[in-house]
Amino acid sequence: MVVGPPKADATTVAELGRLGVATVHEAAGRTGLLGADLRPLWPGAAIAGTAVTVLCPPGDNLMVHAAIEQAGPGDVIVITTTSPSTDGFVGELITTALAARKVAGLVTTTGVRDVAVITSTRFPVWSRAVSAQGTIKATAGAVNVPISIAGTIVMPGDAVIADDDGVVVVPRLEVAEVAEQGRRREEREEHARAAFAAGELSLDRNGLRPELDRLGVRYVSADPVTGLAADPEGS
Amino acid sequence: MVVGPPKADATTVAELGRLGVATVHEAAGRTGLLGADLRPLWPGAAIAGTAVTVLCPPGDNLMVHAAIEQAGPGDVIVITTTSPSTDGFVGELITTALAARKVAGLVTTTGVRDVAVITSTRFPVWSRAVSAQGTIKATAGAVNVPISIAGTIVMPGDAVIADDDGVVVVPRLEVAEVAEQGRRREEREEHARAAFAAGELSLDRNGLRPELDRLGVRYVSADPVTGLAADPEGS
Amino acid sequence: MVVGPPKADATTVAELGRLGVATVHEAAGRTGLLGADLRPLWPGAAIAGTAVTVLCPPGDNLMVHAAIEQAGPGDVIVITTTSPSTDGFVGELITTALAARKVAGLVTTTGVRDVAVITSTRFPVWSRAVSAQGTIKATAGAVNVPISIAGTIVMPGDAVIADDDGVVVVPRLEVAEVAEQGRRREEREEHARAAFAAGELSLDRNGLRPELDRLGVRYVSADPVTGLAADPEGS
Amino acid sequence: MVVGPPKADATTVAELGRLGVATVHEAAGRTGLLGADLRPLWPGAAIAGTAVTVLCPPGDNLMVHAAIEQAGPGDVIVITTTSPSTDGFVGELITTALAARKVAGLVTTTGVRDVAVITSTRFPVWSRAVSAQGTIKATAGAVNVPISIAGTIVMPGDAVIADDDGVVVVPRLEVAEVAEQGRRREEREEHARAAFAAGELSLDRNGLRPELDRLGVRYVSADPVTGLAADPEGS
Amino acid sequence: MVVGPPKADATTVAELGRLGVATVHEAAGRTGLLGADLRPLWPGAAIAGTAVTVLCPPGDNLMVHAAIEQAGPGDVIVITTTSPSTDGFVGELITTALAARKVAGLVTTTGVRDVAVITSTRFPVWSRAVSAQGTIKATAGAVNVPISIAGTIVMPGDAVIADDDGVVVVPRLEVAEVAEQGRRREEREEHARAAFAAGELSLDRNGLRPELDRLGVRYVSADPVTGLAADPEGS
Amino acid sequence: MVVGPPKADATTVAELGRLGVATVHEAAGRTGLLGADLRPLWPGAAIAGTAVTVLCPPGDNLMVHAAIEQAGPGDVIVITTTSPSTDGFVGELITTALAARKVAGLVTTTGVRDVAVITSTRFPVWSRAVSAQGTIKATAGAVNVPISIAGTIVMPGDAVIADDDGVVVVPRLEVAEVAEQGRRREEREEHARAAFAAGELSLDRNGLRPELDRLGVRYVSADPVTGLAADPEGS
Repeated sequence: MVVGPPKADATTVAELGRLGVATVHEAAGRTGLLGADLRPLWPGAAIAGTAVTVLCPPGDNLMVHAAIEQAGPGDVIVITTTSPSTDGFVGELITTALAARKVAGLVTTTGVRDVAVITSTRFPVWSRAVSAQGTIKATAGAVNVPISIAGTIVMPGDAVIADDDGVVVVPRLEVAEVAEQGRRREEREEHARAAFAAGELSLDRNGLRPELDRLGVRYVSADPVTGLAADPEGS
Repeated sequence: MVVGPPKADATTVAELGRLGVATVHEAAGRTGLLGADLRPLWPGAAIAGTAVTVLCPPGDNLMVHAAIEQAGPGDVIVITTTSPSTDGFVGELITTALAARKVAGLVTTTGVRDVAVITSTRFPVWSRAVSAQGTIKATAGAVNVPISIAGTIVMPGDAVIADDDGVVVVPRLEVAEVAEQGRRREEREEHARAAFAAGELSLDRNGLRPELDRLGVRYVSADPVTGLAADPEGS
Repeated sequence: MVVGPPKADATTVAELGRLGVATVHEAAGRTGLLGADLRPLWPGAAIAGTAVTVLCPPGDNLMVHAAIEQAGPGDVIVITTTSPSTDGFVGELITTALAARKVAGLVTTTGVRDVAVITSTRFPVWSRAVSAQGTIKATAGAVNVPISIAGTIVMPGDAVIADDDGVVVVPRLEVAEVAEQGRRREEREEHARAAFAAGELSLDRNGLRPELDRLGVRYVSADPVTGLAADPEGS
Repeated sequence: MVVGPPKADATTVAELGRLGVATVHEAAGRTGLLGADLRPLWPGAAIAGTAVTVLCPPGDNLMVHAAIEQAGPGDVIVITTTSPSTDGFVGELITTALAARKVAGLVTTTGVRDVAVITSTRFPVWSRAVSAQGTIKATAGAVNVPISIAGTIVMPGDAVIADDDGVVVVPRLEVAEVAEQGRRREEREEHARAAFAAGELSLDRNGLRPELDRLGVRYVSADPVTGLAADPEGS
Repeated sequence: MVVGPPKADATTVAELGRLGVATVHEAAGRTGLLGADLRPLWPGAAIAGTAVTVLCPPGDNLMVHAAIEQAGPGDVIVITTTSPSTDGFVGELITTALAARKVAGLVTTTGVRDVAVITSTRFPVWSRAVSAQGTIKATAGAVNVPISIAGTIVMPGDAVIADDDGVVVVPRLEVAEVAEQGRRREEREEHARAAFAAGELSLDRNGLRPELDRLGVRYVSADPVTGLAADPEGS
Repeated sequence: MVVGPPKADATTVAELGRLGVATVHEAAGRTGLLGADLRPLWPGAAIAGTAVTVLCPPGDNLMVHAAIEQAGPGDVIVITTTSPSTDGFVGELITTALAARKVAGLVTTTGVRDVAVITSTRFPVWSRAVSAQGTIKATAGAVNVPISIAGTIVMPGDAVIADDDGVVVVPRLEVAEVAEQGRRREEREEHARAAFAAGELSLDRNGLRPELDRLGVRYVSADPVTGLAADPEGS
């Protein structure tokens, strides 16, 4: 159990939260996602904070309790297990404790329970499953060690951004650079959105027509009867 | 890339949309569903339109951009990949462009992103996953060729109906017949619904009792202690 | 087909419903869950009742129709199949009939359809999937026989509790004992919730610190540069 | 932990083993299979014996050790967990102990490890996965209680038959009846096999042609160009 | 049920079989695969033939029996279902009948059973699962209609090639062109194999170094202590 | 692309290979496994070497070609993708090149193809799937950067041990310690194996009886009729 890890700058982390998961992921060179199966417990949840990592054995949440003490305002608890487990590692008692400590939210590759209560209190949780299955508190794990989820390495103190699009992690020392790239991308996207809303095509705006041509994509008319390419060499 | 395919009749397609996915599927002889894992991005989404089909390599959405130009009012973009991919092929920029073109909606076997924005704008999307994972624009695919999803063949111009029950496709030349069958079924179901609400049993209304008898189903009393069939030859 | 099975006491079943799935599961010695993939059709659905069990072949809902007649006020239909099937075994006609009979709700390991209508009528349904795929009525199955779902045996007349956390089953003869344990647990949790909201740590309240020590968990400081344990023997 | 359960008759169990999984499953009215994801560790493994059931928490094999003492010649260890786990609950040390006790084999819904050694010693094992992931020995479970796997209830002392087709369980008191039905089926199949090898069609032998006709299946010629039904009302 | 569909040329189909699945798939422009979950029942199985397609309801193999009559020397039975099913649609009686008719092999998205016997007789089968679960013969389906598996459309009479790499389908009218492309590819690969065996790098032989450079891939030395890129801007 | 990373000591790595995956995993404190879904292409494959890591986009194997040049005698190529992909990233041409360079083997979270040839040449490969699906060579990835698979972080130069039990990774600087622990464990297991073969129980040898007692496990006799615990408070 590691205490007092250095953390990503809070102001920059908040800026990453404002940009949102999809933009941050792009700004980070399309890295850092924790996979498509981590979903918010309730729609509209959106947080940004610094990771307190937790590694548990399957079906045993002892180290989650140990991690609560290490988490405070602006932190995000990130839990995974040594082998896959959908058991209910987290319920309303734990989220009550986390809310009392002003922890920003919780992300877990396991299941959670007490969904109705957690949803009504609006504590933000991302999980792989909902399961009432109880856990034990019998085995050691680790807190604030490097963990990895869906191919992304999460270090304690890294920035964790989560919203309806999933969860993305940015290494602690890269938040400023990613935020800067994110702001640029945000600006470009605002212009693009306006253009597309006005009817411009991405084929034109992004210069994709020559690319299609280079790749050999040709336009052929459909046969009015079969609906297939009229020119058999087409498509 | 095939342009200008013949399309199912718009009025009939709208009628199919009014009937809904479950009724249309039944009216089409229980065919045409695109599988149980395509879900609406937001509850209540419901569309009917004509297919613009898109076939992409995994992780590459170049042809989606090419497809936008081929889609207009009343069309539905239907995307699949040559091998399974949950990456985020579609985000708010693309749905903005589609909305500007009055495209009815989008169906994809991949992931989508910018869920919060797409939901707030109420653009209708059905997908297999939510994922912020970015895609590239490097490889050719095809637009308006026959594709297939979950065992159903989708031709450009076919009718695509989607709602909370999933997505169903009706071949272009069969929409009138299916709409007719659907209306008949709708009428039967209205009567059945009223009867069931009044307490009639489907066993009686559908004449299933003789069928149960023919299949050898017998009624035996439960043992009041064990709860099992009192007659060991029962069930 | 077994008729008239003995049923769990209705008042006690209602009490189990008040306690909710997670508490009942714990009170029952962490048993009885029907697995993490049975989800409510609409958030907030919550029921308690007595099981009418149904065993069907894949893709054939004949016995569901037979089961309707066996179900009345306070009952919950629980459906599974002899091999996995996500087809739409249940739609609005069936839920209309069940609502007319004041059946409390329905749980199925299959798919359901007519989601929009069922949701608007607030009939409570838990299922593994949403699918418009139609079923046939051609093969015998069984009603009110022992079935099992996700490792839990369900007997007709057992208590079935379902809410946003999933579905739990309590054997008919154990409901009183489980309700009693559940009330005790509920009381303990109320005190714990208040304590955690006031900032007490579960490490202290639950006496977990000696356990951590016994398991060899040591606290080491993080290196301020690497974020890793400063003491290489740490964690 | 229950000791000394009554067991299915050994001679009859051996006869069920001779008949094989597919025939026994049919003879038992198409019941008793433990699902398509339990596979033999090595091809050709085939056993029949009486169940010693084991229920473990995920990732904890303590009760498997307790079960070894309860198992002897002609028994089959059948393991499942309270929530899904693919960890390596069983390795060569356990199979060595079981072989020393002349236990017939082992079936588990978890993972196993030491695959090369177990295969070389030809101890028969069916499992859901191969995984070297170690387990702990910290939590109580149960031995010789009713468990259920893939919808089939397994009681201690029930007959367990396993081969390349999977695993089937026959209730203790039904083995004689199932063996008798199995022998009849075996005989019928021998005749059918000879007939089919000689070119007879199952359409004729099983009287299926009238059934096809009754179901409305018509024979239409293929269009020699398109390969589709020449008569559009066909298929 | 469609009889007498035109078939791909037998000599060319045999040539495709000699080339093998991977080469044919490439020669067909990387199309035609039936997905990664169709596996041979025994290693080394390899066939080429013309498709007799079968579409069944889940759990019902009636139309497989009807299809046997339509299949003869050089044909391959290709089975799929209207919704997913792993039941044992095919066993040794059916493969005995097919062998008697000199059918080349069988491909199914369902389960099969009697694995030990089918393996010992070396009848070639590709399936998604092994399952002893019995099927019924109660519902109509279709024979020799277009079906689709994993996004590939299969027409009756198309060429079906299957080996340890899976199953690929080539449209009837394209077999000559694909075989020609396949032979060219085979020749190129023979030269490449010899070159690679002699130590040449694919980076050089395929001219990939400029591509890496164009994509911005730079070579940086590893730090001898951390093993990470010595130049922080590297990778 | 990082060149020349420091590597784990070859002699020690070979010793880890001799110990095997299960023993090394235990000796490493039950860490380092790459998950239960990476399986050897042919039974009996067993290797030990040092990791050359490769990170690819889905469906694009360009960086695998770049990695070949970085791999030599005693190395193991370890491939993963930025989002899940079962495409055939590796075939016989690549394994021919690797064999020519005396690379020890290859591990990939993707699919492989040319299974029959690779198996006949006995080049050792572990993969998640078999798939003939071709890949492109269009996008940059990375070689010899930290990657992670199933929660385990893999650094270039780490020890990779793979056999029929799966794949385990040991950090470069920990191989000596793990080998030492592994030898001790091996010795203990030899004694245990001999004891178990002679009939000693693990309950006794491992001192588990007091643990069972402490956990409240009691032994109760089975009712000779029902087979359930005779004492209702049992189990």
